[in-house]
Amino acid sequence: MRRFNVMLKKVVDDSYDIDIGYCLEDRLINDLEEGLCYGYKRVAIICDSTVAPLYATPICRKLIDNGYDPKMFVFPEGERSKIRKTKELIEDDMLVSGFRKDCFVLAVGGGVVTDVSGFLAGTYGRGVPFINYATTLLAAADASVGGKTAVNTPLATNLIGMFNQPKKVYIDLDTWKTLPIRQISSGLAETVKHAMMADKEFFEYLENNVSGVFEFENSVCEHVAEKNCEIKYRVVMKDEKEASLREILNLGHTVGRALETVSDYTLLHGEAVAIGLVAECELSKSRGLMTDDEVNRVKSLLNKCGLETNIPGYIDRNLLVEKLYTDKKVRGGKLRFVLQDGIGKVKQFGDSWATFVNKSEIKRIIFNMK
Amino acid sequence: MRRFNVMLKKVVDDSYDIDIGYCLEDRLINDLEEGLCYGYKRVAIICDSTVAPLYATPICRKLIDNGYDPKMFVFPEGERSKIRKTKELIEDDMLVSGFRKDCFVLAVGGGVVTDVSGFLAGTYGRGVPFINYATTLLAAADASVGGKTAVNTPLATNLIGMFNQPKKVYIDLDTWKTLPIRQISSGLAETVKHAMMADKEFFEYLENNVSGVFEFENSVCEHVAEKNCEIKYRVVMKDEKEASLREILNLGHTVGRALETVSDYTLLHGEAVAIGLVAECELSKSRGLMTDDEVNRVKSLLNKCGLETNIPGYIDRNLLVEKLYTDKKVRGGKLRFVLQDGIGKVKQFGDSWATFVNKSEIKRIIFNMK
Repeated sequence: MRRFNVMLKKVVDDSYDIDIGYCLEDRLINDLEEGLCYGYKRVAIICDSTVAPLYATPICRKLIDNGYDPKMFVFPEGERSKIRKTKELIEDDMLVSGFRKDCFVLAVGGGVVTDVSGFLAGTYGRGVPFINYATTLLAAADASVGGKTAVNTPLATNLIGMFNQPKKVYIDLDTWKTLPIRQISSGLAETVKHAMMADKEFFEYLENNVSGVFEFENSVCEHVAEKNCEIKYRVVMKDEKEASLREILNLGHTVGRALETVSDYTLLHGEAVAIGLVAECELSKSRGLMTDDEVNRVKSLLNKCGLETNIPGYIDRNLLVEKLYTDKKVRGGKLRFVLQDGIGKVKQFGDSWATFVNKSEIKRIIFNMK
Repeated sequence: MRRFNVMLKKVVDDSYDIDIGYCLEDRLINDLEEGLCYGYKRVAIICDSTVAPLYATPICRKLIDNGYDPKMFVFPEGERSKIRKTKELIEDDMLVSGFRKDCFVLAVGGGVVTDVSGFLAGTYGRGVPFINYATTLLAAADASVGGKTAVNTPLATNLIGMFNQPKKVYIDLDTWKTLPIRQISSGLAETVKHAMMADKEFFEYLENNVSGVFEFENSVCEHVAEKNCEIKYRVVMKDEKEASLREILNLGHTVGRALETVSDYTLLHGEAVAIGLVAECELSKSRGLMTDDEVNRVKSLLNKCGLETNIPGYIDRNLLVEKLYTDKKVRGGKLRFVLQDGIGKVKQFGDSWATFVNKSEIKRIIFNMK
């Protein structure tokens, strides 16, 4: 036998900046002029049908005015579009339009747009650069740090995708003003999650100031956006590939994602996560990791954010329990949960941040919830 | 405006070994026992319908006997299967079968299998480990070094995919004995390409010894397998992401891949590449970079490998010229070619290894060929 060793050890620098501010289109043009995407002129602007007229079109015009060669690729808004077919249709459209490797992707929109676009950019021509222009609170909270991109399949959410870091993220706070209230509430669920798992002080700040988000108070919006980036960054830095610590970001998501699917996306992501957070607080409480008072504070803050904390009547709770088993944290067919340890902390279990929970235990919690 | 800097600089080690030998199934089991794939027990064996009974089934049995939990995912053999749909069907099948992130992919087969499997592994659960067990000469020559994975679309070959390095590659030379002669010839096209672009001595070795491959002479097969790895490695090491030098591996592929598509895959990949190599030699000759004698040596070696060097009569040469424009080396709508500089060397053009060629020039070459 002969052995040939392929040596591929190298330093990779995926660092990037997140700019948080107002009307950042000129900032974007300026960064491109300074070589943000290797000076490429062809731009695939990916957005959904809601964002297309509001933000993507003006950005497209501005790019044309500055000598770029952009084309818009628009898909129907909503979580239902976060599928392989959407990616495939855009790829084909880009190929027909002559896009090759000398282009970059500009994602303009919320979490669905940035998830699909980041995944698409990662596999188009085996990887072209991409930029996120985040127009929702949820995208600011969830999608701007971490490099996670994915699509859903009928059988599981977020299981087909990749880690792919953007070249730059813009969080344009002006765009929050055009969001429906329901979308703002949904976005705040991830914000509350971040506070619950890692920052008691920020949790208290939200208890006192969250109404400011609904009134678009600049200082509150900026603080919320920045805190989201900072908390998520602290976690991701220590565990980029989700080997262990990063799993804490799944707080509320085990039940949340299953609920989102079982509701057939009637519930928005954040709405489902809010209920998932409560379920996981109840689980923590039943294991002596949270007090009644702490669980009530969480519920009360979520309500202040305009989020329901009860499981909707139309949800089949048995189906919900079964759906939990499609979660990506499942190991050897067993459910694993991230649990709270009071407010502002998650519980560590040996080397792991998720613990096995058997079906009867979580079933009892889910059936006892309002 | 506030700015948040995400620092993501790190050392990545994607090094791996290629074992070249005979009946390497036990070697594979042994490596797994030593933790090659983090001790995971669930294995998705991906293979095509030809390889399934010959090699994948015995390996599957051996894995079961050794306490693993494998499942075979089989798709119809041939280049036509190298599409997004194949990847999607296997993903869904894996999801139904309960595969999550605690699994690895074992690709058993030729280039199509390793390309599809490597891409699938890179996006399943945002990346699970994969191993290539190469059962063809083409896979040994082309797919074992470089980390390129991809699928074809109706509009372009290899444009949707990613760079993804395997944990290990096995080149089992025993498997070559069950290959149809046509497949061996096809595999040798990449071998000849490697010699043409980077190793005059190896080219001469092939002129004198290539018949030994058809007679399964151990020393010749081993030398050919190892030389393929070594030459490709030398190129890839210097340019992992195909920014520049790596483009030389495209020698013969600009015309070759277009021909493969226009023939509707009647031509095997290597058969198309052989004709593409001749076309690109003729182009080099017309630019004074190769002599008549050198072009004839190339044709003669390809013929010795059992490969045709004329464009088949059923090919629409105008369509072939148009198809060239879907090549991934196209920049700003212009064709780019890698050219020979005698035998064993490619021509450098300033910083680049590919040069612009206009339509009339390549059209003349293609229409003048036999």
